[in-house]
Amino acid sequence: MTNQQTDNSPTVGDIGEQGILNEILPLLDAKDAGLGPGDDAGALRVAGGEVVVSVDTIVQDQDFRLVWPSGHEHAAYDIGWKSIAQNVSDINAMGGVPTGAVISLSMPAEVSLAWAKEFARGIAAAISSLGADRLAVLGGDLSRSSEISVTTTVLGECEYGKILRTGAKPGDRLAVAGRLGAAGAGLALLEGKHEATTWSRAVLRLADAQCKPTPPLESGPRAAQSGAHAMMDISDGLVRDAGRLAKASHVSFKLDKSALEVFAQRLEPAAKLLDLDPMQWVLHGGEDFGLLACFPSGVEIPEEFSVVGEVVPLTGRRSNVFLNGKQLDYRSGFDHFG
Amino acid sequence: MTNQQTDNSPTVGDIGEQGILNEILPLLDAKDAGLGPGDDAGALRVAGGEVVVSVDTIVQDQDFRLVWPSGHEHAAYDIGWKSIAQNVSDINAMGGVPTGAVISLSMPAEVSLAWAKEFARGIAAAISSLGADRLAVLGGDLSRSSEISVTTTVLGECEYGKILRTGAKPGDRLAVAGRLGAAGAGLALLEGKHEATTWSRAVLRLADAQCKPTPPLESGPRAAQSGAHAMMDISDGLVRDAGRLAKASHVSFKLDKSALEVFAQRLEPAAKLLDLDPMQWVLHGGEDFGLLACFPSGVEIPEEFSVVGEVVPLTGRRSNVFLNGKQLDYRSGFDHFG
Repeated sequence: MTNQQTDNSPTVGDIGEQGILNEILPLLDAKDAGLGPGDDAGALRVAGGEVVVSVDTIVQDQDFRLVWPSGHEHAAYDIGWKSIAQNVSDINAMGGVPTGAVISLSMPAEVSLAWAKEFARGIAAAISSLGADRLAVLGGDLSRSSEISVTTTVLGECEYGKILRTGAKPGDRLAVAGRLGAAGAGLALLEGKHEATTWSRAVLRLADAQCKPTPPLESGPRAAQSGAHAMMDISDGLVRDAGRLAKASHVSFKLDKSALEVFAQRLEPAAKLLDLDPMQWVLHGGEDFGLLACFPSGVEIPEEFSVVGEVVPLTGRRSNVFLNGKQLDYRSGFDHFG
Repeated sequence: MTNQQTDNSPTVGDIGEQGILNEILPLLDAKDAGLGPGDDAGALRVAGGEVVVSVDTIVQDQDFRLVWPSGHEHAAYDIGWKSIAQNVSDINAMGGVPTGAVISLSMPAEVSLAWAKEFARGIAAAISSLGADRLAVLGGDLSRSSEISVTTTVLGECEYGKILRTGAKPGDRLAVAGRLGAAGAGLALLEGKHEATTWSRAVLRLADAQCKPTPPLESGPRAAQSGAHAMMDISDGLVRDAGRLAKASHVSFKLDKSALEVFAQRLEPAAKLLDLDPMQWVLHGGEDFGLLACFPSGVEIPEEFSVVGEVVPLTGRRSNVFLNGKQLDYRSGFDHFG
C-alpha cells in the first residue's frame, strides 16, 4: 500500500520501543549543549534572559501523504526534514536562533524500521543543511497510533531581541526572504494528475519545495539585527499571513505586483505543466517558510530580502492588504478544521 | 458512539481553527512568565544556567479510551489533566520545577467544541491543583487527525541541580513518593467487565487515579534539596522502572515486600471487586507518576517518601531487582510497540 511496507526491514512493532531508540539515537547526534536523550528530561544550557519556544504537528493525510495522487512518494527522510524545517522557521521568524528540539513520533506498529531510520536521517540532515548549527536534539517520545504524526518543539534564543507581529509602522518597507509560492506549486504538482515519473528536473525541484522546505535561517536574526519592526514566517501564504501581520500591528499593507513577478517566473515549469497562473501560488501558496518583515525607512535591509510593498495607515477600522490598489481577501485560505 | 458526539455543541470543524483558539485561550490563563500564545513562538524568562525539557504524547485507544470496556467515559477534562500531569512529572523526576508548556492537540473535525473546552479546563485545573504554580502555557498547535492525540512539552528549572538516573550508590536507601499501583488498579477496573455505574466511591477513586494521575510535584525538588543521589518517576511500574534506574547506575536494588504492603492495602476495593492480588499492581502498575529516589545514608529523607528497599552492589554483570531475595524480571512490561 505505501512505501512503509514494501521493503524487507523489520517493523517497529517487531523490535519494540527500546530497539527503535537504539537504532535512531545514534543518527541524531546529541550535541554537547545539554544532557541529550536518555533521562526523564533533556537539558539545555541557556544564557539567561529568555528562551523562545514553538511547537508544530504534522499529520499523515493532512499535512503530507505517503503517496501523493501524482504517484510521488513522500520519503520518510523528507518528513523528518519538514518537521524540523517548519519549527526552526518559527524561531527564525522571532529573529532567533534555534538551540534545542524535542521530537515526538507516533506511528503504526507496521511501519518499517528502515522508515523510522530514514525519518531520523532527515531530521539530522535538515539541522545541518539549514544551518541550525546550535540546535541539539534533547529528547523525544515514541507512541503507537493509527497514522503517522510528528510533533516537534524547538527552543531558541533571540540575541537581538524578539521581533513580534505587532510592531509594523506606516512608512515601513515590507520585504520577504526565502521562496514564495514554490511549496504551493509543489503541492499542486503532488496533488495533480501529471505522473511524477514524467516530471522534469525543474518540476521535481518545485515538488521538493513542498516536501523539503528550506526556511532562510540566517535571515531572521539578520533582520532583527538590522532593526526590523515586525516579522513572521509565511506558512499559510503571503496574503493571508500579511493580513495577520497587518491586523496584529493595526496597519494596512500595499503589495507591489511588479516586485512579485520575479517569484512567479521561478514557478513557470509548474505553471506551464498545469496550465495555471503562477502568481496565485506567490500570493496564496503556503509552507515555503520564508520571512515577511517590516523595516523602518533608513535602515539597510539585508540583501537577501526583496522589498515587495509598504506599510500604510489604516483607512477604516480593519486592516487591509492591497495588491496594486486592489483589496485582497486575506481571511480565506487554509484552515486545519475548515 | 462517544461522548464527543452526544451533545449539541458545534464541532471544531464547524467553527475552525481561529474559532477554537478564541474559545480555548481564555481558559488557559497565560501567566506573565513570557509572551504566551499568539506570535510565532512563545517566550519564557529563564534565570540562566539550564532549562530542562520533556515531551510526551498520549493517543486515543493507546493511552486512553473515550469509552472504556467498563462503560466509564474518559472525560475530556481528564485527558487535558493527564497530558499535563505526566509531563510535569518528568520535570519533577529531575528535581525540577515546571515553568512553561506548549501543547499540541490533534483531533477529528467531528469533535465538539464543548469537548475541546473541557480539555482546556482540565489542563488549567491540573496546573493549579497539582501545584505547578510557576507553569505558564506558552503556546500550542491545533491539527486535524483521525484520532485524538495530545503532545505536551514542558520546560523546567532545577534550582538544586538535576537529579539523574545514574547516581545511585550501594548503601543508598530506595524510597518512593506518591501513589503505587492505584493507576494500575484503575486501568484494570476501566478495562474490566464490572459496569462503572455500579462502582463504589472507593472504586471510582482508583479509576480516577488512572484518568487523572497526581504526581507529587513538590517532592522532586525536595528530594534534590535533601541530596538524593538518583531519581526517576514511576511511569511504567515500580519493578520495571527500578530496573532501569539500577541499570543506569550499575547497581542492584533490594525491595522489601513488607514496606510495600501499605500501598497494596489501599488497593483493596479494586482487588476485592476483581478478585486479584493488589501487590501485582504495586509492583507492576504504571502511570501513577510517583517518584523513585535513592538517598545516601545519613541524610534526612523528606517525610512524604517511604523507604521501600536499598541499593546493593552488582553481584554479576547485570543489574537486578530483588523482592525479599527473589530476583524479578524487570525487562518485561509495557512497550508501546511490543
